[in-house]
Amino acid sequence: MTAIKATTDYIRAHEEQALQNLIELCSIPSVSTLSAHKHDIERAAAWVADRMGAVGMQAVRVLPTSGHPVVYGENLGARGQPTVLIYGHYDVQPADPIDEWESPAFEPTGRGANLYARGASDNKGQIVAVFAALEAWSRAGGGLPVNIKMMIEGEEEVGSPNLSAFIKEHSELLAADFCMNADSSIGMADNPSIVYGLRGLAYFELWVYGPKSDLHSGMFGGAVHNPANVLCDLIAGMHATDGHITLPLCYDRVQPISEDERVSLASLPYDEDAVRTSAANPPELFGEEGFSTIERIGTRPALDVNGLYSGFIDEGSKTVLPAKAMAKLSMRLVPDQDPSEIARGLRCYLQEHAPETVNWELKELAHAKPVVVNLDFIGVRAAEIAVETVFDVPPTFVRMGGTVPAVSIFSDVLGIDTVNLGFALDDDGIHGPNEKMHLPTFHRGVETYAHFFGTLAN
Amino acid sequence: MTAIKATTDYIRAHEEQALQNLIELCSIPSVSTLSAHKHDIERAAAWVADRMGAVGMQAVRVLPTSGHPVVYGENLGARGQPTVLIYGHYDVQPADPIDEWESPAFEPTGRGANLYARGASDNKGQIVAVFAALEAWSRAGGGLPVNIKMMIEGEEEVGSPNLSAFIKEHSELLAADFCMNADSSIGMADNPSIVYGLRGLAYFELWVYGPKSDLHSGMFGGAVHNPANVLCDLIAGMHATDGHITLPLCYDRVQPISEDERVSLASLPYDEDAVRTSAANPPELFGEEGFSTIERIGTRPALDVNGLYSGFIDEGSKTVLPAKAMAKLSMRLVPDQDPSEIARGLRCYLQEHAPETVNWELKELAHAKPVVVNLDFIGVRAAEIAVETVFDVPPTFVRMGGTVPAVSIFSDVLGIDTVNLGFALDDDGIHGPNEKMHLPTFHRGVETYAHFFGTLAN
Repeated sequence: MTAIKATTDYIRAHEEQALQNLIELCSIPSVSTLSAHKHDIERAAAWVADRMGAVGMQAVRVLPTSGHPVVYGENLGARGQPTVLIYGHYDVQPADPIDEWESPAFEPTGRGANLYARGASDNKGQIVAVFAALEAWSRAGGGLPVNIKMMIEGEEEVGSPNLSAFIKEHSELLAADFCMNADSSIGMADNPSIVYGLRGLAYFELWVYGPKSDLHSGMFGGAVHNPANVLCDLIAGMHATDGHITLPLCYDRVQPISEDERVSLASLPYDEDAVRTSAANPPELFGEEGFSTIERIGTRPALDVNGLYSGFIDEGSKTVLPAKAMAKLSMRLVPDQDPSEIARGLRCYLQEHAPETVNWELKELAHAKPVVVNLDFIGVRAAEIAVETVFDVPPTFVRMGGTVPAVSIFSDVLGIDTVNLGFALDDDGIHGPNEKMHLPTFHRGVETYAHFFGTLAN
Repeated sequence: MTAIKATTDYIRAHEEQALQNLIELCSIPSVSTLSAHKHDIERAAAWVADRMGAVGMQAVRVLPTSGHPVVYGENLGARGQPTVLIYGHYDVQPADPIDEWESPAFEPTGRGANLYARGASDNKGQIVAVFAALEAWSRAGGGLPVNIKMMIEGEEEVGSPNLSAFIKEHSELLAADFCMNADSSIGMADNPSIVYGLRGLAYFELWVYGPKSDLHSGMFGGAVHNPANVLCDLIAGMHATDGHITLPLCYDRVQPISEDERVSLASLPYDEDAVRTSAANPPELFGEEGFSTIERIGTRPALDVNGLYSGFIDEGSKTVLPAKAMAKLSMRLVPDQDPSEIARGLRCYLQEHAPETVNWELKELAHAKPVVVNLDFIGVRAAEIAVETVFDVPPTFVRMGGTVPAVSIFSDVLGIDTVNLGFALDDDGIHGPNEKMHLPTFHRGVETYAHFFGTLAN
């Protein structure tokens, strides 16, 4: 029996155990943005470190950063073989809106072929899948076929603000031939894809301050500028009616897509009708004029309000002229947009358009560069083979709308390529209520990781 | 000793008791808009009923409505004298923003010359002051000099949605020569004014619905219309840059102000600089072009956002494309704007401007007509004399920006005039944090009510 056969047999015999591990990790509410969950972050990091040890990683440690810790482990016993740095994150988005979950976000619940829990798909499912693949190689396959370094961080969902400094500080420890980013998606269960482009991110909190304190809207309405109205004016002015973003500097560095890429994107098995009916309601899509949906998501920047708050939002009516108003705003960036330049453009816009009757403050919460990875190296080839072996279809290559700050940092700081290999599906509801992991895809993911490591070995 | 001398002596000897009563009533968090405070509403109604009995009202009862109850009492023993219907409300606005109170909103706290508590000025202070004046006439003045009917309602702060039906149903019980509305202000402690105009109100909750549930802003941003962005577009479009409201029908019935009224408003002791520095921050006012501040507040409609909510509003960042967005919006109306017509205009605007990529819903939470009262009747003359007697300055007559739905209802349903006589100051912070009652003005208010009743008697 070959090593890979023994490894996959082990994986199939231990599917139930892998699922139990996923349930355990998803039960820890490791929400990185909320300080109330600091202890849960620590619990999740400890869980990841324990599992690393259990699957044969050595020198496992929980390394501090200025924010949440990074869990590191390595197994460098495969002499003469390449070294792969595996990246993932154990933190999750908040469960909001909590009322819309059909089962509690941190009580993983099976329904049909899915396991529902915050983080099940983003990114705990892939972490647990990697562990299962490593365990199978260690216990049944005769040891790991390649050298592995693993770093699982705790701040991806807040834009990895401390990751660049961490990687600089630990560049020797993390040195590798290339990175495998497990925080990625496979698109559709029957039409697998490998992500080669990720949008960047610039996330802001914009405050508009008006009166010294909330005022009676009858006594002052019409005579004192209302900061909530001003905030709406400012946000409305950020888009033209054709969906174009109006901020200065925004499009200066956006790479035009080539005719070739347009043709290639149009030929992908991307089901726009499915997006229309599953996501939009009414089922009408909207975006920048002159671009298709897949072009808009993969190759064009977007500016979205992620949160709005002002005044009285409880039941019924309160006739108040609020003292302040806040928007969480983020932009998804494409090559070669630079998050700092984008922030400068937004600041310019606000300086020019905010009226003198209010004050404003712009907080920059997260920056991540857009990235298009090199497709021509051993990591991508091994991933392609592994996916085709397990899914019985060759993967397509796609640019995704999401952001993984780590990928551009590995390229910038360590000078290494990254292959994105993860098993989230487009309809997993990540970041929203009722996030789920499709369990057949999860189990195929474990096998795909096993084949990926096997294929990499000389 | 004359009856009025005995009455005012009694008032001065019982100032401490009046203050204790105010503290008691302000300790009850009778927030009408929040269903969690239903029991407190009942407690406040019971307190008012008890006090009515204690100061000599008869046939006291707590009368149900479709919402919160109205407390009624009467004393009709002054044969041959006019009958005054006294109006006030025992409900209050929510305490939000709670964090900005220097002392808890429902633990009345004295600092300097003021008592700080939600409702101290709007409207519990005037209710308690009326009680103190009635008690003094009853116990020391030889009995009430006029016939009194009192109705204190519990829904003014939510726009008195059930008051019109209540007054129609009880029109015989409430029949009177005129009404004295105690839910009013005196402006400045040393420059008293009597309000003769009140703006109307149309209060709305506007929901914009986008995706079926919250989406990942990376995976969908730029391709699915964001309802929070759409909400901002819609709100921004409701004003032109010159502060004019753009909604259809809005100005169709607005009475232009005459040159005479402009001159009269300009001559009032209205301190625009004080408004600028006390309310606005930065100290810049803003409103419809072509009108002064006092004209904007008293004679022009205003449209304000009272609340905004969408997506994630907790600390830090969540990259979500929210499923829905909400604004609480209200318009202050001036003669002869009609709230139903204004609602129709807003609905037209939304039908025309909301894109087909979202759904929307407009809830109408409150309607109240604007009103300018008759200045030429015994109620106003008696109020003028009473204010001048106690404050040593003749009052000016002003149009206020606020709304008391009851006033137009008394005119429409009962066919009676109203005089507005209350003692809130412009800087009392009503509806905002740190609402207060200026205690010297409160005690003068008690005496003014006593003189008002005395002056009315033949």
